[in-house]
Amino acid sequence: MINKLKKLKPIKGIKLSSISSGMYKKKRLDLSLMEISDGSSIAGVFTINKGRSDTINISEKNLKKTNPKFIIVNSGNANAGTGKEGFNDIIKYSKVLANIANCKIEDILVFSTGIIGERIKYKNIIESLPSLNKNLSDNGWEAFSKSILTTDTTVKKISKTISLSGKKINISGVTKGSGMIMPNMATMLSFVATDIKISKSTLIKILKKITEKSFNMITVDGETSTNDASILISTGKSSTNFNNLKKNEKDLFLNTLENIYKDLAKMIVKDGEGATKFITINVKNTATFSDAKKIAMSIAKSPLVKTAIFAEDPNWGRILSAIGNVQTKVKDLSKIEIYIGNFLVFKDNQINKNYVENRVKKYLKNDNVDITIKYNGGKKSATVWTTDLTYEYIKINAEYRT
Amino acid sequence: MINKLKKLKPIKGIKLSSISSGMYKKKRLDLSLMEISDGSSIAGVFTINKGRSDTINISEKNLKKTNPKFIIVNSGNANAGTGKEGFNDIIKYSKVLANIANCKIEDILVFSTGIIGERIKYKNIIESLPSLNKNLSDNGWEAFSKSILTTDTTVKKISKTISLSGKKINISGVTKGSGMIMPNMATMLSFVATDIKISKSTLIKILKKITEKSFNMITVDGETSTNDASILISTGKSSTNFNNLKKNEKDLFLNTLENIYKDLAKMIVKDGEGATKFITINVKNTATFSDAKKIAMSIAKSPLVKTAIFAEDPNWGRILSAIGNVQTKVKDLSKIEIYIGNFLVFKDNQINKNYVENRVKKYLKNDNVDITIKYNGGKKSATVWTTDLTYEYIKINAEYRT
Repeated sequence: MINKLKKLKPIKGIKLSSISSGMYKKKRLDLSLMEISDGSSIAGVFTINKGRSDTINISEKNLKKTNPKFIIVNSGNANAGTGKEGFNDIIKYSKVLANIANCKIEDILVFSTGIIGERIKYKNIIESLPSLNKNLSDNGWEAFSKSILTTDTTVKKISKTISLSGKKINISGVTKGSGMIMPNMATMLSFVATDIKISKSTLIKILKKITEKSFNMITVDGETSTNDASILISTGKSSTNFNNLKKNEKDLFLNTLENIYKDLAKMIVKDGEGATKFITINVKNTATFSDAKKIAMSIAKSPLVKTAIFAEDPNWGRILSAIGNVQTKVKDLSKIEIYIGNFLVFKDNQINKNYVENRVKKYLKNDNVDITIKYNGGKKSATVWTTDLTYEYIKINAEYRT
Repeated sequence: MINKLKKLKPIKGIKLSSISSGMYKKKRLDLSLMEISDGSSIAGVFTINKGRSDTINISEKNLKKTNPKFIIVNSGNANAGTGKEGFNDIIKYSKVLANIANCKIEDILVFSTGIIGERIKYKNIIESLPSLNKNLSDNGWEAFSKSILTTDTTVKKISKTISLSGKKINISGVTKGSGMIMPNMATMLSFVATDIKISKSTLIKILKKITEKSFNMITVDGETSTNDASILISTGKSSTNFNNLKKNEKDLFLNTLENIYKDLAKMIVKDGEGATKFITINVKNTATFSDAKKIAMSIAKSPLVKTAIFAEDPNWGRILSAIGNVQTKVKDLSKIEIYIGNFLVFKDNQINKNYVENRVKKYLKNDNVDITIKYNGGKKSATVWTTDLTYEYIKINAEYRT
């Protein structure tokens, strides 16, 4: 369901190269190296799954200590549930890169995505590193966006250029993810870089805030994975310093960045495993953001709502039940209004008297479906993006390994 | 997957009758009346879904006030999301029964299960009540067990007789439910009756405790419905009084009752929508019951685990990820052992060195699959029962209304 995407723009200070290392089950790009220039700031958000891969533990630790110079990313193997051997494998290939590139192993971030519990082919990585290091290029973004995919059916990428005080700023980002998608990260990796200069502490705050509005507002199947990470890099290679911008220019940059993250998050949902529908759930006028998000997520995660939308069936009773299912400050469902598209379906604790089911059935034939819940308990709102639940989801996940 | 069940035994003090009222989409039994003799104690547990049907609100209220004399149950329409009209419809048919049977409307409990949001055919109930009342019989249990079904493919029923101090005690119970099944009740109704004498306050405590170990330990699709209720009746028509029993006899009765509830709960899971596997998840040796249950439920609710078991694929990485996904006092997954059947799969944070995948693949061809998680953080444990997630689940829920 993803439209044709534009080519990614290079970001000054970022070089990339990708290779087919033999890690992925099919022969294709599956290993990438990113070189980040000195003076860059780097921020990261990581999965809270307790079974998380040592790649995440190591990357989080290194990122706290320093601003790393390299990122190694592989697809096909998650290096999770692999014990001390899995940890040692990371150290082995990190040492080789440190040696080639004359840096410390703490200067390296590592990310892996793919099957859990199988030992990573670290020798393939070691053998690929010299060539990866030699071929680093400003124009490596397209290959990079392909190399990180697993069950994804399309690349997910976006570039934007904006003018701040007459000077151009570039932002490029890629992400991957299709199943195991839920708030607090998922089988998801995301890398976004910009050439504006931002201090590390500010960058961390920005990434956390934007993640709450983008990647943490999507769900495909309610699963959170062991390997999720989102990395934001500011190289500072343009002549613009975020701190020196006027308020309205700061806002322009932050809004642009937030929209990039929202677009990347939506691309993951649109490529959700087996999805035939892109569903936007808006919950409005609750007392807290948390309540609005809880209600939206309860609808988004309901297999009964998801199968009904797959069937293009306006079975709003399932939406009502999903709203009632979650414990919030919304005490009285008689003050709830349910809209499917622009059609008011439920009000005053019963079906809208003017509801015409055939109109809503026709609306549900669209690829994009909006569900809106209006309450009158406050001024907060939340938007969550999700997919339907289909035969194809079962097929993909019943056949992933076998 | 449910085996042939024995005929239900009559319970002194309980009379039943059922009819085809035209409520259900197909012509079949869909409306039942239960008469409960004077002097009975009645306890109930009800859904906490906030969009719950007024049948539940009314029944809960009446049960607090008194020990009701009648229960009316219909299938085919849930009378939820039907506003004031839905409430008034209940009052209308309750008044008719009160008039026929010469009781107050507070003496009547009402339960409905089926489609949400459509007005109930209360006239069909009113027209059926004289005949239902006339045909009340000790031997109505079999018809009753059929009349309450919706997407269920089989009846769910059990009777047991035990001797206490040389006297026979009978217990009979029925339940319904197949989709929308999750802890804290579901699209689930359950009615169990016994002829032992138990005070109402004791009966309430017993039902609550047993529900925690039976109906609250199952999940099919993580959905909780607007209409769930579980009713336990003691008629006291045998000459045995629970209070006068010795400790070991009390325990025998309570264990028997608990096993009846567990069996009924398991029957719901075995008839889970589209299920091809009955999955038992044991979590052992955690500090608290809550932690054990959280972990078991996280595995039971994971679509990735459920599709893997449908595919008979020992993809234990998904089990590991589901364990890591939930916030508990279990801090260290390296102390976790994962068993599929009797096969130790994961230990010391990595795959068991002696693991032979083909043996576990062969084991997964069984209809019954056990997953056991052992930790060494305490003495508590929990067992949850669930199903796999299949093409058929999607089919049933995409085609339920259309």
